[in-house]
Amino acid sequence: MMTSNRQIILANHPVGMPTAEDLPLQESALPELQDGQLLMKNIYLSLDPYMRGRMSKAKSYAAGVPLGTAMQGGTVGQVVSSKLDGFAEGDFVLGFGGWQDYAVQDKTTLRKLDPSQAPISTALGVLGMPGFTAYAGLLEIGQPKEGETVVVSAASGAVGQVVGQIAKLKGCRVVGVAGAEDKCRHVVEAYGFDACVNYKDDDFETRLAEACPNGIDIYFENVGGKVFDAVMKLVNDFARIPLCGRIAHYNDTEAPQGPDQLSAFLTKLLVKRVLIKGFIQFDYAHLMKDFVKDMSSWMQAGKIQYQEDVVDGLENAVEAFQGLLEGRNRGKLLVRISEDPTR
Amino acid sequence: MMTSNRQIILANHPVGMPTAEDLPLQESALPELQDGQLLMKNIYLSLDPYMRGRMSKAKSYAAGVPLGTAMQGGTVGQVVSSKLDGFAEGDFVLGFGGWQDYAVQDKTTLRKLDPSQAPISTALGVLGMPGFTAYAGLLEIGQPKEGETVVVSAASGAVGQVVGQIAKLKGCRVVGVAGAEDKCRHVVEAYGFDACVNYKDDDFETRLAEACPNGIDIYFENVGGKVFDAVMKLVNDFARIPLCGRIAHYNDTEAPQGPDQLSAFLTKLLVKRVLIKGFIQFDYAHLMKDFVKDMSSWMQAGKIQYQEDVVDGLENAVEAFQGLLEGRNRGKLLVRISEDPTR
Repeated sequence: MMTSNRQIILANHPVGMPTAEDLPLQESALPELQDGQLLMKNIYLSLDPYMRGRMSKAKSYAAGVPLGTAMQGGTVGQVVSSKLDGFAEGDFVLGFGGWQDYAVQDKTTLRKLDPSQAPISTALGVLGMPGFTAYAGLLEIGQPKEGETVVVSAASGAVGQVVGQIAKLKGCRVVGVAGAEDKCRHVVEAYGFDACVNYKDDDFETRLAEACPNGIDIYFENVGGKVFDAVMKLVNDFARIPLCGRIAHYNDTEAPQGPDQLSAFLTKLLVKRVLIKGFIQFDYAHLMKDFVKDMSSWMQAGKIQYQEDVVDGLENAVEAFQGLLEGRNRGKLLVRISEDPTR
Repeated sequence: MMTSNRQIILANHPVGMPTAEDLPLQESALPELQDGQLLMKNIYLSLDPYMRGRMSKAKSYAAGVPLGTAMQGGTVGQVVSSKLDGFAEGDFVLGFGGWQDYAVQDKTTLRKLDPSQAPISTALGVLGMPGFTAYAGLLEIGQPKEGETVVVSAASGAVGQVVGQIAKLKGCRVVGVAGAEDKCRHVVEAYGFDACVNYKDDDFETRLAEACPNGIDIYFENVGGKVFDAVMKLVNDFARIPLCGRIAHYNDTEAPQGPDQLSAFLTKLLVKRVLIKGFIQFDYAHLMKDFVKDMSSWMQAGKIQYQEDVVDGLENAVEAFQGLLEGRNRGKLLVRISEDPTR
């Protein structure tokens, strides 16, 4: 019986980019299992941009992680011992197991996984929260119509890659925005995007305009910053902007210098009759069944591809997370905490 | 037969507040009637904030008024002579007759009015474009639910007064924002708003917060500026913001000083999952029938009140329009160009 557990702890609220000092690795004792609980051994930890918000004091849609406790996060793992009906030793599960080797979980966060249906890691990606975020935001807020132009930022990321592929299935022209040539190539070649533009290019605005000759009807917003500014110059009347994330700003420590662009932005929304809506996937929980049905059938038909970027070792999670905020990952970022026995 | 016509001409694109130099009164000859046209004598000219946009060069949802031509605008008048089937001399009509004594109109802009059903001036107000703007924006974008808190700016204006009253009919708590004590009193006493706050008060933000103890679920935006900023501090999760107008900014000549508030604003939309959408009433033309039915029945049942602010004389239209942009009007602003024979 293991009684000790490696955890990455939130020691300080980071200022700007989170560091290893903010997020040290510590050993702690495992609590004893109560009835209705199980112990899972984490195999994959999902790293996602929203976690930057959980590290902050600022109020957000979810409570922050308390200082001195393990960082939270979705994990896929295997049951080590169970006092929870319906779950047995050896079962593979999706849970909210956090940045640690082992997690005690109860039924509120658990879903059993069938490794014969899909690789267990996809429960954290294309078949999990990022895929559902893409599905709900694009279809419910974006309301794509055939022939429309959809732009998606962080195009090669866990959410962006799914947004673009669903938009293609809906008959749209899909233009990705990413921060590296190989990312741009990948979304065109592997996911069938019509074009992808590198926002680090000097002539990014020109290239985006060229890639969107009929303007932009839907902008799936993951990043903010200069990409957002460039897109706003190209939006069509009645454009829709599902506002999913703002990665470029998660480490901001103060408001940008002026002039104040808010007034001009609101005037643009008015003149163009643009809709913009912030959302998180929890808001659309009622669509989860449809998502699982649609996404499973698309995957079985080979209509949805995905890319995972797997980093080995819990001790490398902080550096991997820094890379995520800087766009160094390629596809859905996972930390392999322990060996995946299904591969 | 009259052959001459007084017109207010757009002579220059105004910089900041429009002046009498930008909008001089001129005499011009009346064109001869063609088949399919009628000549209407304007009785009431509607003055509305959107007209400031029509005076500008900047692209908007409608083309600007060409320099050297009469300012455009909705009017109610009486037919002087007709070469248009279905319209006879003496008929009262709603048209797009502009800032002038007489207008040649064809069927594309005309609707016949029945003075026995409602005062003809209401076709420019509560039963016309402002009322429909209120109806469509509140119900389609705002989606008010019983018990929610609705804040409406320019509360005593042509649109605001209707927004608040429909929101009350839907069971909401309604809080107005206006720029004068008598306006605030009026919307509470005449329209049944639950509260109204004067944005010119030093402690405006505190008072608004006190008037919205459960936060704000819907903000019907007409003005921008400090009212918008104060509202954003109080929005609840899932708030909806129908973005109808930004009167406070129509005379802006440059972007406000920094810091740049846009980024913080978008983060707020994301964290609170707020929806904001610009709109104009034309976008909801398919609802016009429902509007006429609902509004007529509400008015016949005494459930909707309205206030008109009537200025006499076409020669006073520019000053009245300046007053509108400065909030000096009380209720729906109309210019009486000629006597109303129905009163």
